[in-house]
Amino acid sequence: MTEVSVAFLAELVAGRLEGDGSRRIRGLGDLRDATEDRIGFVRHPRYYEAAAKTQAGALLATETIETSAALIVVDDVDVAYAKVAMHFHPLPHASEHFVHPTASVHPEAELQQPVHVGANASIGRCRVGAGTYVFPGVSVGDGATLGERCVLHANSVVGDGCVLGDRVILQPNSVVGSDGFGYAREGAKWIKVPQLGIVVLKDDVEVGANSAIDRGTLGVTTIGARTKLDNLVHIAHNCTIGEDVVMAAGAMVAGSTKLGDRCVLAGQVGVSGHLKITDDCRFAGDTVVLKDVDEPGDYMGHPMMTKRKYMRVMRELRKLAGD
Amino acid sequence: MTEVSVAFLAELVAGRLEGDGSRRIRGLGDLRDATEDRIGFVRHPRYYEAAAKTQAGALLATETIETSAALIVVDDVDVAYAKVAMHFHPLPHASEHFVHPTASVHPEAELQQPVHVGANASIGRCRVGAGTYVFPGVSVGDGATLGERCVLHANSVVGDGCVLGDRVILQPNSVVGSDGFGYAREGAKWIKVPQLGIVVLKDDVEVGANSAIDRGTLGVTTIGARTKLDNLVHIAHNCTIGEDVVMAAGAMVAGSTKLGDRCVLAGQVGVSGHLKITDDCRFAGDTVVLKDVDEPGDYMGHPMMTKRKYMRVMRELRKLAGD
Amino acid sequence: MTEVSVAFLAELVAGRLEGDGSRRIRGLGDLRDATEDRIGFVRHPRYYEAAAKTQAGALLATETIETSAALIVVDDVDVAYAKVAMHFHPLPHASEHFVHPTASVHPEAELQQPVHVGANASIGRCRVGAGTYVFPGVSVGDGATLGERCVLHANSVVGDGCVLGDRVILQPNSVVGSDGFGYAREGAKWIKVPQLGIVVLKDDVEVGANSAIDRGTLGVTTIGARTKLDNLVHIAHNCTIGEDVVMAAGAMVAGSTKLGDRCVLAGQVGVSGHLKITDDCRFAGDTVVLKDVDEPGDYMGHPMMTKRKYMRVMRELRKLAGD
Repeated sequence: MTEVSVAFLAELVAGRLEGDGSRRIRGLGDLRDATEDRIGFVRHPRYYEAAAKTQAGALLATETIETSAALIVVDDVDVAYAKVAMHFHPLPHASEHFVHPTASVHPEAELQQPVHVGANASIGRCRVGAGTYVFPGVSVGDGATLGERCVLHANSVVGDGCVLGDRVILQPNSVVGSDGFGYAREGAKWIKVPQLGIVVLKDDVEVGANSAIDRGTLGVTTIGARTKLDNLVHIAHNCTIGEDVVMAAGAMVAGSTKLGDRCVLAGQVGVSGHLKITDDCRFAGDTVVLKDVDEPGDYMGHPMMTKRKYMRVMRELRKLAGD
Repeated sequence: MTEVSVAFLAELVAGRLEGDGSRRIRGLGDLRDATEDRIGFVRHPRYYEAAAKTQAGALLATETIETSAALIVVDDVDVAYAKVAMHFHPLPHASEHFVHPTASVHPEAELQQPVHVGANASIGRCRVGAGTYVFPGVSVGDGATLGERCVLHANSVVGDGCVLGDRVILQPNSVVGSDGFGYAREGAKWIKVPQLGIVVLKDDVEVGANSAIDRGTLGVTTIGARTKLDNLVHIAHNCTIGEDVVMAAGAMVAGSTKLGDRCVLAGQVGVSGHLKITDDCRFAGDTVVLKDVDEPGDYMGHPMMTKRKYMRVMRELRKLAGD
Repeated sequence: MTEVSVAFLAELVAGRLEGDGSRRIRGLGDLRDATEDRIGFVRHPRYYEAAAKTQAGALLATETIETSAALIVVDDVDVAYAKVAMHFHPLPHASEHFVHPTASVHPEAELQQPVHVGANASIGRCRVGAGTYVFPGVSVGDGATLGERCVLHANSVVGDGCVLGDRVILQPNSVVGSDGFGYAREGAKWIKVPQLGIVVLKDDVEVGANSAIDRGTLGVTTIGARTKLDNLVHIAHNCTIGEDVVMAAGAMVAGSTKLGDRCVLAGQVGVSGHLKITDDCRFAGDTVVLKDVDEPGDYMGHPMMTKRKYMRVMRELRKLAGD
């Protein structure tokens, strides 16, 4: 938690400084009880009165307001808040090389120092980039490659041969590289098809707690850069998920489906296999997607319709029910 | 599995004793093959005939029935059964202090003796109450506080700073304190908002296998006393879940929602974020809750309606389909 | 990856050999770039042109085609592919006895040599069959029994007393034997009913990543032979799941339900408790099953209908919406 000047923070968030840029700031604060070494946040005019009375040394806001604090004016307070908060509370990363005595590291593993390996973690014959922080109980398989400054939270698993870019975050108990759900039917009996592919997570991907991403059958299951998966998300084998996608908790995508960039899947959405979903599609909670989507836009329902059509169907249903 | 008298058990369940209270009972039994040191259970009149012939030394029932067993008459056999079964089969707890040689315990961790720490568990600089039993592979983060007689099953995770009351149970691979799903959008790119809050689980909370509860963004995600979460449940950041709530498998609650006391969510229910659900609401399986609920009662459907309205809609739909 | 003859592979897949059975094959190959020591696969006539030009030493196909490769003609290329791929890429299994120095094995555990126990695994007082391969971080409870050539992937959990047949596969972070979700209501308060039963997984069962199977309350939760569970699947206490069942990701079955043989549950299907589902039922994605199913066939919808009826309802709904 480094002390910095208001001017430094203004530059960090690309904001316009109004007031004394030399004030020293040591952390985040709430408008009402912040002290002069804190920076506060004004997200809405309803906080302007509190801003006028605050003791905080600096404030982030979207316009010039009345206050004794130094002001950093930005277009988007949420984005600026994220950057300031990340400055004062950086993610875990290895600043010095450390391997806990109870951890197991394969003698031929290539750890690009510094790396932090927590208690009872198991690191196979893999490569790990500098700055990466491995929490207790994590398992990384043979042949895996991890980028720089990744964070692998407790008991997460990276399977053999899988590839993580830089700054990838795995929340606790998440799984990267489980076997795809692939079987052939011989009479009534299912026999397993070996799952020989891998998973590739591009830079800045985050995987939520207890989520699972299956390896490709022969090829690759890919998650694009900056895509964020919430808890209990499932990505099946051979999927290609675009960049900047967001999938909320319980969303699931079946095998070989391609999901475009910037798609948003709300909670518990299900997408069938072998589909192609274009860029910029947004699916409301629990939507069931059974066919390709060629047009960006909003979709919902069971089965999926455009939002406009779904609204019409619901209106008619309500009439039927005598409303 | 301590031997006790029928009179002791009658008092344990606050039941009315009929017959010989001095008989010795050593465990649970089935009406048909129990021996005289066993206690059986009569949940329904269809078992009265078996009760008349049983060799069990004691029976739990809701009224006086014909039997040679000593009878303990109670209002609710299920509640009495739970208490008797728990007496003979208590949950795991530490009766003597034990730390497995393969476990890692931070030198400044405060373990209130006796605590049991299983193989390959990793205990950070935290506080653990007396009687708590930690199974193998568990990870407890720095700054966490665990109450007395908690049970942390294999490979469960408690994140930094999280707080568990007394007698909290975490099923295997459950996660308390994963990061909330919080990002700010800068152009097309998502950037992570640091998740600086914690999770508080009150006394007697139980969390199912592979369930995940996210920490607050700044504040607290709270689960009220005696609330029970089944497997694969998701609680997002900043939620406040009431007391005596039951959430069945796959139920998910999005961020900042408040759920009242005694609510019941059946399997796969999804609740949107920033909602307020009053006490005593019951949601049928797979209900999608998109708005506040001010009235206690039964809800179902997609989107959610009152049970009464949903039934009407379904009737009309069936007519439409020519039924 | 053993070198074998084409004749050997033809016998392995019970195919008809056409051409030189003495050629040596060392692995799988793609039609376009395979070398003469590779076997390729022709799943569809659109690949016949590539097959005519391939350098592969052998091909699997469903009929006689023009090619310089030795041909193995089979009824089902997928089944033959699975068997050939499994030959060249067998599942992990213990070929020599190995216990990693960081693993913990109870002194009274009975390991039928050879068994492989990975780093930081915790093996209780249990029995483990020959050839079984235990990845890092796995936990096996006391009294458990594991068959031969099982594969327990990283951080999977087998609870006390549970029984796995031969060749059972647990994907990473899966749980076998969590407590069932059983409580009795005393006034407004839920009290826990001890879960004293076990889980039995028959031969060749596979459990997906982050899936959970609860132990019986008193008796047994059973999964039939060759049944395959995808990721994030939930099986509640006392269920009996048939043989050759397939449950896709997010499918969940509530307590005490019996599911017949060869049923197929697509993703996110929910089945209520205490139901009886007959053999050979197929449920489309996200179907909500609230009642017994006596007739084999296809079902879908919310609530569940036959596929035929659901299609009719959807057609009428679309008309209502003015399509």
